[in-house]
Amino acid sequence: MDARSPQNSYPVTPTNKVKRMHERGSYDREAVYAILDSAFLCHVAYVIDGQPYCTPTIHWREGDWLYWHGSAASRMLKNQKQGAPVCLTVSHLDGLVLARSGFNHSANYRSAMCFGTAAIVEAPEEKQKALKGIIERFYPGRAAGLRENTAQEEKATTVIGMRIEQASAKSRAKQVGDDEEDFGIAAWAGVIPVSTVIGAPQTSPNLPEGVTFPAHLAPYREGRRLDDALAECQQAYEAGA
Amino acid sequence: MDARSPQNSYPVTPTNKVKRMHERGSYDREAVYAILDSAFLCHVAYVIDGQPYCTPTIHWREGDWLYWHGSAASRMLKNQKQGAPVCLTVSHLDGLVLARSGFNHSANYRSAMCFGTAAIVEAPEEKQKALKGIIERFYPGRAAGLRENTAQEEKATTVIGMRIEQASAKSRAKQVGDDEEDFGIAAWAGVIPVSTVIGAPQTSPNLPEGVTFPAHLAPYREGRRLDDALAECQQAYEAGA
Repeated sequence: MDARSPQNSYPVTPTNKVKRMHERGSYDREAVYAILDSAFLCHVAYVIDGQPYCTPTIHWREGDWLYWHGSAASRMLKNQKQGAPVCLTVSHLDGLVLARSGFNHSANYRSAMCFGTAAIVEAPEEKQKALKGIIERFYPGRAAGLRENTAQEEKATTVIGMRIEQASAKSRAKQVGDDEEDFGIAAWAGVIPVSTVIGAPQTSPNLPEGVTFPAHLAPYREGRRLDDALAECQQAYEAGA
Repeated sequence: MDARSPQNSYPVTPTNKVKRMHERGSYDREAVYAILDSAFLCHVAYVIDGQPYCTPTIHWREGDWLYWHGSAASRMLKNQKQGAPVCLTVSHLDGLVLARSGFNHSANYRSAMCFGTAAIVEAPEEKQKALKGIIERFYPGRAAGLRENTAQEEKATTVIGMRIEQASAKSRAKQVGDDEEDFGIAAWAGVIPVSTVIGAPQTSPNLPEGVTFPAHLAPYREGRRLDDALAECQQAYEAGA
Protein backbone atom coordinates (compact mmCIF):
# COMPACT_ATOMS: atom_id res chain seq x y z
CA MET A 1 0.00 0.00 0.00
CA ASP A 2 1.56 3.32 -0.94
CA ALA A 3 0.32 6.89 -0.87
CA ARG A 4 -0.73 6.87 -4.51
CA SER A 5 -2.91 3.78 -4.38
CA PRO A 6 -4.48 3.80 -0.93
CA GLN A 7 -7.12 1.32 0.04
CA ASN A 8 -10.52 2.72 0.83
CA SER A 9 -10.48 1.99 4.53
CA TYR A 10 -7.96 1.92 7.34
CA PRO A 11 -7.56 -1.40 9.15
CA VAL A 12 -9.42 -1.61 12.46
CA THR A 13 -7.18 -2.48 15.37
CA PRO A 14 -7.41 -2.19 19.16
CA THR A 15 -5.66 1.21 18.80
CA ASN A 16 -8.00 3.00 16.41
CA LYS A 17 -11.25 1.10 17.12
CA VAL A 18 -13.99 3.56 18.12
CA LYS A 19 -15.16 2.44 21.55
CA ARG A 20 -17.72 4.94 22.82
CA MET A 21 -20.72 5.63 20.56
CA HIS A 22 -19.19 3.32 17.96
CA GLU A 23 -22.15 3.92 15.61
CA ARG A 24 -20.66 7.39 15.08
CA GLY A 25 -17.34 5.95 13.87
CA SER A 26 -15.86 5.33 10.45
CA TYR A 27 -12.59 3.95 9.11
CA ASP A 28 -13.16 5.26 5.62
CA ARG A 29 -10.13 6.99 4.17
CA GLU A 30 -12.09 9.71 2.39
CA ALA A 31 -14.03 10.48 5.59
CA VAL A 32 -10.76 10.89 7.50
CA TYR A 33 -9.23 13.03 4.73
CA ALA A 34 -12.29 15.30 4.58
CA ILE A 35 -12.00 16.10 8.30
CA LEU A 36 -8.23 16.64 8.13
CA ASP A 37 -8.40 18.80 5.00
CA SER A 38 -10.99 21.22 6.39
CA ALA A 39 -8.93 22.16 9.46
CA PHE A 40 -6.02 24.52 9.95
CA LEU A 41 -5.07 23.33 13.45
CA CYS A 42 -4.53 19.85 14.78
CA HIS A 43 -3.40 18.49 18.15
CA VAL A 44 -0.51 16.04 18.33
CA ALA A 45 -0.06 13.67 21.29
CA TYR A 46 3.37 12.25 21.99
CA VAL A 47 5.26 10.85 24.97
CA ILE A 48 8.53 11.90 26.55
CA ASP A 49 9.73 9.82 29.51
CA GLY A 50 6.21 8.52 30.15
CA GLN A 51 4.70 12.02 30.20
CA PRO A 52 2.07 12.67 27.50
CA TYR A 53 2.05 16.03 25.70
CA CYS A 54 -0.73 17.49 23.58
CA THR A 55 0.54 20.22 21.27
CA PRO A 56 -1.54 22.31 18.86
CA THR A 57 0.07 22.93 15.51
CA ILE A 58 -0.56 23.39 11.78
CA HIS A 59 -0.83 20.21 9.72
CA TRP A 60 -1.06 19.47 6.00
CA ARG A 61 -1.60 16.30 4.01
CA GLU A 62 0.01 14.76 0.92
CA GLY A 63 -1.85 11.56 0.07
CA ASP A 64 -1.61 9.32 3.11
CA TRP A 65 1.19 11.36 4.67
CA LEU A 66 0.70 14.05 7.28
CA TYR A 67 3.17 16.82 7.93
CA TRP A 68 3.22 19.34 10.71
CA HIS A 69 5.22 22.22 11.96
CA GLY A 70 8.02 21.60 14.42
CA SER A 71 7.15 21.64 18.09
CA ALA A 72 8.59 20.55 21.39
CA ALA A 73 8.36 17.02 19.96
CA SER A 74 11.24 17.93 17.66
CA ARG A 75 13.65 17.62 20.55
CA MET A 76 12.41 14.13 21.32
CA LEU A 77 12.66 13.13 17.66
CA LYS A 78 16.16 14.51 17.16
CA ASN A 79 17.51 11.51 19.02
CA GLN A 80 15.12 8.99 17.49
CA LYS A 81 15.94 8.55 13.85
CA GLN A 82 13.61 5.56 13.71
CA GLY A 83 10.71 7.79 14.76
CA ALA A 84 8.25 7.72 17.64
CA PRO A 85 4.55 6.87 17.95
CA VAL A 86 2.16 9.82 17.85
CA CYS A 87 -1.55 10.46 17.53
CA LEU A 88 -2.62 13.47 15.47
CA THR A 89 -6.22 14.55 16.00
CA VAL A 90 -8.39 17.13 14.23
CA SER A 91 -11.77 18.23 15.58
CA HIS A 92 -14.51 20.53 14.34
CA LEU A 93 -17.25 21.71 16.70
CA ASP A 94 -20.52 22.09 14.77
CA GLY A 95 -23.14 22.59 17.44
CA LEU A 96 -24.22 22.48 21.07
CA VAL A 97 -27.00 19.94 21.63
CA LEU A 98 -29.40 20.73 24.46
CA ALA A 99 -31.80 18.11 25.79
CA ARG A 100 -34.56 17.76 28.41
CA SER A 101 -32.21 15.70 30.63
CA GLY A 102 -28.59 16.32 31.51
CA PHE A 103 -27.71 12.88 30.17
CA ASN A 104 -28.95 13.57 26.64
CA HIS A 105 -26.98 16.79 26.19
CA SER A 106 -24.35 16.38 23.51
CA ALA A 107 -22.41 18.15 20.77
CA ASN A 108 -22.34 17.98 16.99
CA TYR A 109 -18.79 17.54 15.78
CA ARG A 110 -16.45 15.90 13.26
CA SER A 111 -13.14 14.46 14.44
CA ALA A 112 -10.37 12.30 13.05
CA MET A 113 -7.65 10.50 15.00
CA CYS A 114 -4.57 9.42 13.03
CA PHE A 115 -1.87 7.10 14.35
CA GLY A 116 1.59 6.68 12.94
CA THR A 117 5.32 6.91 13.51
CA ALA A 118 6.56 10.48 13.38
CA ALA A 119 10.01 11.45 12.20
CA ILE A 120 11.77 14.71 11.36
CA VAL A 121 11.85 15.33 7.61
CA GLU A 122 15.57 15.68 6.88
CA ALA A 123 16.15 14.65 3.28
CA PRO A 124 16.68 18.02 1.52
CA GLU A 125 14.37 17.28 -1.41
CA GLU A 126 11.52 16.03 0.78
CA LYS A 127 11.94 18.97 3.16
CA GLN A 128 11.86 21.51 0.32
CA LYS A 129 8.69 19.89 -1.01
CA ALA A 130 7.11 19.97 2.44
CA LEU A 131 8.02 23.64 2.97
CA LYS A 132 6.41 24.49 -0.34
CA GLY A 133 3.38 22.41 0.62
CA ILE A 134 2.86 24.30 3.89
CA ILE A 135 2.23 27.46 1.81
CA GLU A 136 0.64 26.04 -1.34
CA ARG A 137 -1.73 23.68 0.43
CA PHE A 138 -3.31 26.57 2.35
CA TYR A 139 -2.84 29.27 -0.29
CA PRO A 140 -2.56 27.64 -3.73
CA GLY A 141 -0.75 29.94 -6.15
CA ARG A 142 0.87 32.01 -3.42
CA ALA A 143 4.45 30.66 -3.26
CA ALA A 144 5.50 32.06 -6.66
CA GLY A 145 5.07 35.67 -5.46
CA LEU A 146 7.04 35.32 -2.23
CA ARG A 147 10.67 35.83 -1.35
CA GLU A 148 12.24 32.36 -1.19
CA ASN A 149 13.24 31.05 2.21
CA THR A 150 16.94 31.43 2.95
CA ALA A 151 19.07 28.42 3.78
CA GLN A 152 19.15 29.64 7.37
CA GLU A 153 15.35 29.88 7.53
CA GLU A 154 14.97 26.38 6.11
CA LYS A 155 17.39 25.08 8.68
CA ALA A 156 15.45 26.81 11.46
CA THR A 157 12.16 25.22 10.38
CA THR A 158 11.49 21.71 11.61
CA VAL A 159 8.99 19.66 9.64
CA ILE A 160 7.68 16.42 11.08
CA GLY A 161 6.05 13.79 8.93
CA MET A 162 4.27 10.47 9.31
CA ARG A 163 2.36 8.05 7.14
CA ILE A 164 -1.13 7.47 8.50
CA GLU A 165 -0.93 3.85 9.63
CA GLN A 166 -4.28 3.72 11.39
CA ALA A 167 -7.10 6.22 11.63
CA SER A 168 -10.72 6.67 12.55
CA ALA A 169 -13.30 9.38 11.99
CA LYS A 170 -16.16 10.15 14.33
CA SER A 171 -19.02 12.57 13.93
CA ARG A 172 -22.44 13.58 15.17
CA ALA A 173 -24.67 15.73 12.94
CA LYS A 174 -28.29 15.59 14.04
CA GLN A 175 -31.01 16.96 16.27
CA VAL A 176 -31.19 16.30 20.00
CA GLY A 177 -32.00 12.74 21.03
CA ASP A 178 -34.44 13.29 23.88
CA ASP A 179 -36.15 10.20 25.30
CA GLU A 180 -39.79 10.01 24.19
CA GLU A 181 -40.87 10.02 27.85
CA ASP A 182 -39.27 13.48 28.12
CA PHE A 183 -41.14 15.07 25.17
CA GLY A 184 -43.68 16.64 27.54
CA ILE A 185 -41.11 18.52 29.62
CA ALA A 186 -41.46 22.25 28.98
CA ALA A 187 -37.74 23.03 28.64
CA TRP A 188 -36.28 24.29 25.35
CA ALA A 189 -34.30 21.62 23.51
CA GLY A 190 -32.53 21.61 20.18
CA VAL A 191 -29.24 22.47 18.55
CA ILE A 192 -27.31 25.73 18.77
CA PRO A 193 -25.10 25.55 15.66
CA VAL A 194 -21.60 27.02 15.67
CA SER A 195 -19.19 27.56 12.80
CA THR A 196 -15.79 29.09 12.30
CA VAL A 197 -15.97 31.93 9.79
CA ILE A 198 -13.57 34.25 8.03
CA GLY A 199 -13.49 37.96 8.87
CA ALA A 200 -12.46 41.04 6.90
CA PRO A 201 -8.78 40.91 5.90
CA GLN A 202 -6.45 43.16 7.90
CA THR A 203 -3.86 44.42 5.45
CA SER A 204 -0.30 44.93 6.67
CA PRO A 205 0.65 48.64 6.92
CA ASN A 206 3.95 47.86 5.19
CA LEU A 207 2.79 46.98 1.67
CA PRO A 208 3.85 48.86 -1.47
CA GLU A 209 1.10 51.12 -2.77
CA GLY A 210 -1.47 49.49 -5.01
CA VAL A 211 -1.17 45.93 -3.63
CA THR A 212 -4.68 44.56 -3.07
CA PHE A 213 -6.18 41.32 -1.76
CA PRO A 214 -5.15 38.87 -4.51
CA ALA A 215 -7.15 36.40 -6.59
CA HIS A 216 -5.32 33.42 -5.09
CA LEU A 217 -6.87 34.27 -1.69
CA ALA A 218 -10.43 34.36 -3.07
CA PRO A 219 -11.34 31.17 -1.15
CA TYR A 220 -10.86 33.19 2.07
CA ARG A 221 -13.56 35.76 1.41
CA GLU A 222 -15.20 37.47 4.37
CA GLY A 223 -18.14 35.63 5.89
CA ARG A 224 -17.29 32.22 4.47
CA ARG A 225 -16.85 29.09 6.59
CA LEU A 226 -13.15 28.37 7.18
CA ASP A 227 -13.62 24.61 6.78
CA ASP A 228 -15.09 25.08 3.31
CA ALA A 229 -12.25 27.42 2.28
CA LEU A 230 -9.59 25.00 3.53
CA ALA A 231 -11.19 22.00 1.79
CA GLU A 232 -11.38 23.96 -1.47
CA CYS A 233 -7.71 24.95 -1.20
CA GLN A 234 -6.64 21.35 -0.57
CA GLN A 235 -8.48 20.28 -3.72
CA ALA A 236 -6.89 23.07 -5.76
CA TYR A 237 -3.49 22.11 -4.35
CA GLU A 238 -3.94 18.48 -5.29
CA ALA A 239 -5.18 19.42 -8.76
CA GLY A 240 -2.13 21.62 -9.35
CA ALA A 241 0.48 19.47 -7.61
CA MET B 1 -1.78 25.30 47.75
CA ASP B 2 -5.42 24.33 47.34
CA ALA B 3 -8.07 25.20 44.80
CA ARG B 4 -9.50 28.03 46.90
CA SER B 5 -6.28 29.96 47.38
CA PRO B 6 -4.34 29.45 44.18
CA GLN B 7 -1.08 31.24 43.58
CA ASN B 8 -1.01 33.62 40.67
CA SER B 9 1.33 31.56 38.52
CA TYR B 10 2.05 27.93 37.83
CA PRO B 11 5.56 26.73 38.61
CA VAL B 12 7.82 26.48 35.57
CA THR B 13 9.33 23.04 35.09
CA PRO B 14 10.94 21.15 32.21
CA THR B 15 7.46 19.76 31.43
CA ASN B 16 5.46 22.96 30.98
CA LYS B 17 8.25 25.36 29.98
CA VAL B 18 7.42 27.02 26.65
CA LYS B 19 10.31 26.17 24.34
CA ARG B 20 9.51 27.50 20.88
CA MET B 21 8.68 31.23 20.64
CA HIS B 22 8.94 31.47 24.41
CA GLU B 23 8.18 35.18 24.30
CA ARG B 24 4.60 34.13 23.50
CA GLY B 25 4.32 32.07 26.68
CA SER B 26 2.82 32.72 30.09
CA TYR B 27 2.45 30.77 33.31
CA ASP B 28 -0.14 33.11 34.72
CA ARG B 29 -3.10 31.30 36.25
CA GLU B 30 -5.69 33.81 35.02
CA ALA B 31 -4.28 33.66 31.49
CA VAL B 32 -4.63 29.87 31.51
CA TYR B 33 -8.14 30.04 32.98
CA ALA B 34 -9.29 32.57 30.38
CA ILE B 35 -8.27 30.27 27.53
CA LEU B 36 -9.82 27.19 29.14
CA ASP B 37 -13.07 28.96 30.02
CA SER B 38 -13.74 30.28 26.53
CA ALA B 39 -13.62 26.84 24.87
CA PHE B 40 -16.15 24.05 24.63
CA LEU B 41 -13.76 21.38 23.31
CA CYS B 42 -10.36 20.33 24.55
CA HIS B 43 -7.93 17.61 23.50
CA VAL B 44 -6.58 15.18 26.10
CA ALA B 45 -3.33 13.26 25.57
CA TYR B 46 -2.74 10.06 27.49
CA VAL B 47 -0.67 6.91 27.10
CA ILE B 48 -1.69 3.26 26.99
CA ASP B 49 1.15 0.72 26.67
CA GLY B 50 3.49 3.37 25.24
CA GLN B 51 0.99 4.48 22.57
CA PRO B 52 -0.11 8.13 22.85
CA TYR B 53 -3.76 9.00 22.22
CA CYS B 54 -5.24 12.43 21.58
CA THR B 55 -8.98 12.54 22.28
CA PRO B 56 -11.31 15.51 21.81
CA THR B 57 -13.86 15.97 24.55
CA ILE B 58 -15.83 18.51 26.57
CA HIS B 59 -14.10 19.99 29.61
CA TRP B 60 -15.16 22.25 32.44
CA ARG B 61 -13.32 23.91 35.31
CA GLU B 62 -13.92 24.31 39.05
CA GLY B 63 -11.14 26.44 40.50
CA ASP B 64 -7.89 24.68 39.73
CA TRP B 65 -9.63 21.39 38.87
CA LEU B 66 -10.52 20.30 35.38
CA TYR B 67 -13.21 17.75 34.59
CA TRP B 68 -13.99 16.09 31.31
CA HIS B 69 -16.36 13.64 29.83
CA GLY B 70 -15.44 9.96 29.81
CA SER B 71 -13.49 8.70 26.85
CA ALA B 72 -11.42 5.73 25.84
CA ALA B 73 -9.09 6.82 28.64
CA SER B 74 -11.70 5.64 31.11
CA ARG B 75 -10.73 2.03 30.45
CA MET B 76 -7.11 2.80 31.23
CA LEU B 77 -8.07 4.64 34.42
CA LYS B 78 -10.43 1.92 35.67
CA ASN B 79 -7.39 -0.11 36.68
CA GLN B 80 -5.36 2.83 37.96
CA LYS B 81 -6.93 4.15 41.13
CA GLN B 82 -3.85 6.28 41.72
CA GLY B 83 -4.44 8.04 38.40
CA ALA B 84 -2.34 8.53 35.29
CA PRO B 85 -0.48 11.50 33.78
CA VAL B 86 -2.35 13.44 31.11
CA CYS B 87 -2.02 16.70 29.21
CA LEU B 88 -5.21 18.62 28.47
CA THR B 89 -4.89 21.30 25.80
CA VAL B 90 -7.29 23.98 24.58
CA SER B 91 -6.65 26.02 21.43
CA HIS B 92 -8.42 28.91 19.74
CA LEU B 93 -7.54 29.85 16.17
CA ASP B 94 -7.87 33.62 15.73
CA GLY B 95 -6.32 34.33 12.37
CA LEU B 96 -4.20 33.26 9.43
CA VAL B 97 -1.06 35.38 9.11
CA LEU B 98 0.29 35.81 5.58
CA ALA B 99 3.76 37.19 4.94
CA ARG B 100 6.05 38.09 2.04
CA SER B 101 8.18 34.98 2.74
CA GLY B 102 7.08 31.44 3.54
CA PHE B 103 9.10 31.57 6.74
CA ASN B 104 7.18 34.53 8.21
CA HIS B 105 3.74 33.00 7.69
CA SER B 106 2.08 32.28 11.00
CA ALA B 107 -1.22 32.09 12.86
CA ASN B 108 -2.89 34.10 15.57
CA TYR B 109 -4.05 31.81 18.36
CA ARG B 110 -4.52 31.30 22.08
CA SER B 111 -3.66 27.94 23.63
CA ALA B 112 -3.27 26.45 27.10
CA MET B 113 -1.58 23.19 28.03
CA CYS B 114 -2.44 21.71 31.43
CA PHE B 115 -0.63 18.83 33.08
CA GLY B 116 -1.89 16.70 35.92
CA THR B 117 -2.84 13.27 37.18
CA ALA B 118 -6.22 12.16 35.90
CA ALA B 119 -8.54 9.88 37.84
CA ILE B 120 -12.15 8.77 37.48
CA VAL B 121 -14.45 10.72 39.76
CA GLU B 122 -16.11 7.99 41.83
CA ALA B 123 -17.12 9.52 45.17
CA PRO B 124 -20.93 9.91 44.78
CA GLU B 125 -21.05 13.47 46.12
CA GLU B 126 -18.19 14.70 43.92
CA LYS B 127 -19.63 12.94 40.88
CA GLN B 128 -23.08 14.46 41.41
CA LYS B 129 -21.51 17.89 41.71
CA ALA B 130 -19.50 17.34 38.53
CA LEU B 131 -22.56 16.15 36.58
CA LYS B 132 -24.41 19.27 37.66
CA GLY B 133 -21.38 21.35 36.68
CA ILE B 134 -21.27 19.95 33.15
CA ILE B 135 -24.73 21.49 32.55
CA GLU B 136 -24.61 24.59 34.74
CA ARG B 137 -21.15 25.71 33.67
CA PHE B 138 -22.23 25.86 30.03
CA TYR B 139 -25.87 26.81 30.59
CA PRO B 140 -26.20 28.51 33.99
CA GLY B 141 -29.78 28.23 35.25
CA ARG B 142 -30.66 25.30 33.03
CA ALA B 143 -30.44 22.27 35.36
CA ALA B 144 -33.51 23.21 37.43
CA GLY B 145 -35.84 22.78 34.44
CA LEU B 146 -34.54 19.37 33.35
CA ARG B 147 -35.53 15.84 34.19
CA GLU B 148 -33.00 14.56 36.71
CA ASN B 149 -30.55 11.93 35.57
CA THR B 150 -31.54 8.41 36.60
CA ALA B 151 -29.21 6.28 38.70
CA GLN B 152 -28.56 4.20 35.58
CA GLU B 153 -27.65 7.28 33.54
CA GLU B 154 -25.28 8.51 36.25
CA LYS B 155 -23.62 5.12 36.34
CA ALA B 156 -23.24 5.17 32.55
CA THR B 157 -21.52 8.57 32.61
CA THR B 158 -17.81 8.59 33.35
CA VAL B 159 -16.34 11.84 34.62
CA ILE B 160 -12.59 12.27 34.78
CA GLY B 161 -10.96 14.92 36.93
CA MET B 162 -7.53 16.33 37.62
CA ARG B 163 -6.01 19.18 39.51
CA ILE B 164 -3.90 21.40 37.26
CA GLU B 165 -0.40 20.74 38.56
CA GLN B 166 1.46 22.59 35.82
CA ALA B 167 0.25 24.72 32.95
CA SER B 168 1.29 27.23 30.35
CA ALA B 169 -0.54 29.59 28.03
CA LYS B 170 0.72 30.67 24.64
CA SER B 171 -0.72 33.19 22.22
CA ARG B 172 -0.04 35.35 19.20
CA ALA B 173 -2.29 38.32 18.50
CA LYS B 174 -0.67 40.77 16.10
CA GLN B 175 -0.01 41.78 12.52
CA VAL B 176 2.35 39.92 10.23
CA GLY B 177 6.03 40.16 11.08
CA ASP B 178 7.61 40.63 7.67
CA ASP B 179 11.31 41.39 7.58
CA GLU B 180 11.98 45.06 6.69
CA GLU B 181 13.99 43.93 3.67
CA ASP B 182 10.77 42.35 2.34
CA PHE B 183 8.57 45.46 2.62
CA GLY B 184 9.04 46.24 -1.07
CA ILE B 185 7.77 42.87 -2.33
CA ALA B 186 4.44 43.36 -4.09
CA ALA B 187 2.62 40.43 -2.51
CA TRP B 188 -0.38 40.96 -0.23
CA ALA B 189 0.42 40.41 3.43
CA GLY B 190 -1.65 40.73 6.55
CA VAL B 191 -4.03 38.85 8.79
CA ILE B 192 -7.18 36.99 7.76
CA PRO B 193 -9.09 36.84 11.05
CA VAL B 194 -11.28 33.86 11.89
CA SER B 195 -13.75 33.40 14.73
CA THR B 196 -16.20 30.76 15.86
CA VAL B 197 -19.72 32.18 15.96
CA ILE B 198 -23.16 31.06 17.04
CA GLY B 199 -25.89 30.37 14.47
CA ALA B 200 -29.68 30.47 14.64
CA PRO B 201 -31.05 27.96 17.17
CA GLN B 202 -32.62 24.82 15.65
CA THR B 203 -35.54 23.95 17.89
CA SER B 204 -36.36 20.26 18.46
CA PRO B 205 -39.60 19.23 16.71
CA ASN B 206 -40.68 17.43 19.89
CA LEU B 207 -41.28 20.36 22.25
CA PRO B 208 -44.64 21.11 23.91
CA GLU B 209 -46.40 24.04 22.25
CA GLY B 210 -45.39 27.46 23.48
CA VAL B 211 -41.86 26.60 24.59
CA THR B 212 -39.49 29.29 23.31
CA PHE B 213 -35.74 29.93 23.45
CA PRO B 214 -35.26 30.68 27.16
CA ALA B 215 -33.65 33.57 29.00
CA HIS B 216 -30.94 31.33 30.47
CA LEU B 217 -29.62 30.76 26.92
CA ALA B 218 -29.38 34.47 26.14
CA PRO B 219 -25.55 34.31 26.12
CA TYR B 220 -25.82 32.08 23.02
CA ARG B 221 -27.55 34.60 20.79
CA GLU B 222 -27.13 34.29 17.04
CA GLY B 223 -24.07 35.98 15.58
CA ARG B 224 -22.13 36.17 18.83
CA ARG B 225 -18.63 34.76 19.28
CA LEU B 226 -18.75 31.38 21.02
CA ASP B 227 -15.67 32.12 23.14
CA ASP B 228 -17.32 35.23 24.58
CA ALA B 229 -20.52 33.33 25.36
CA LEU B 230 -18.63 30.52 27.09
CA ALA B 231 -16.52 32.93 29.17
CA GLU B 232 -19.65 34.80 30.25
CA CYS B 233 -21.35 31.54 31.27
CA GLN B 234 -18.34 30.43 33.31
CA GLN B 235 -18.44 33.74 35.19
CA ALA B 236 -22.16 33.42 35.83
CA TYR B 237 -21.62 29.82 36.99
CA GLU B 238 -18.90 30.88 39.42
CA ALA B 239 -21.00 33.76 40.72
CA GLY B 240 -23.94 31.44 41.37
CA ALA B 241 -22.03 28.39 42.56
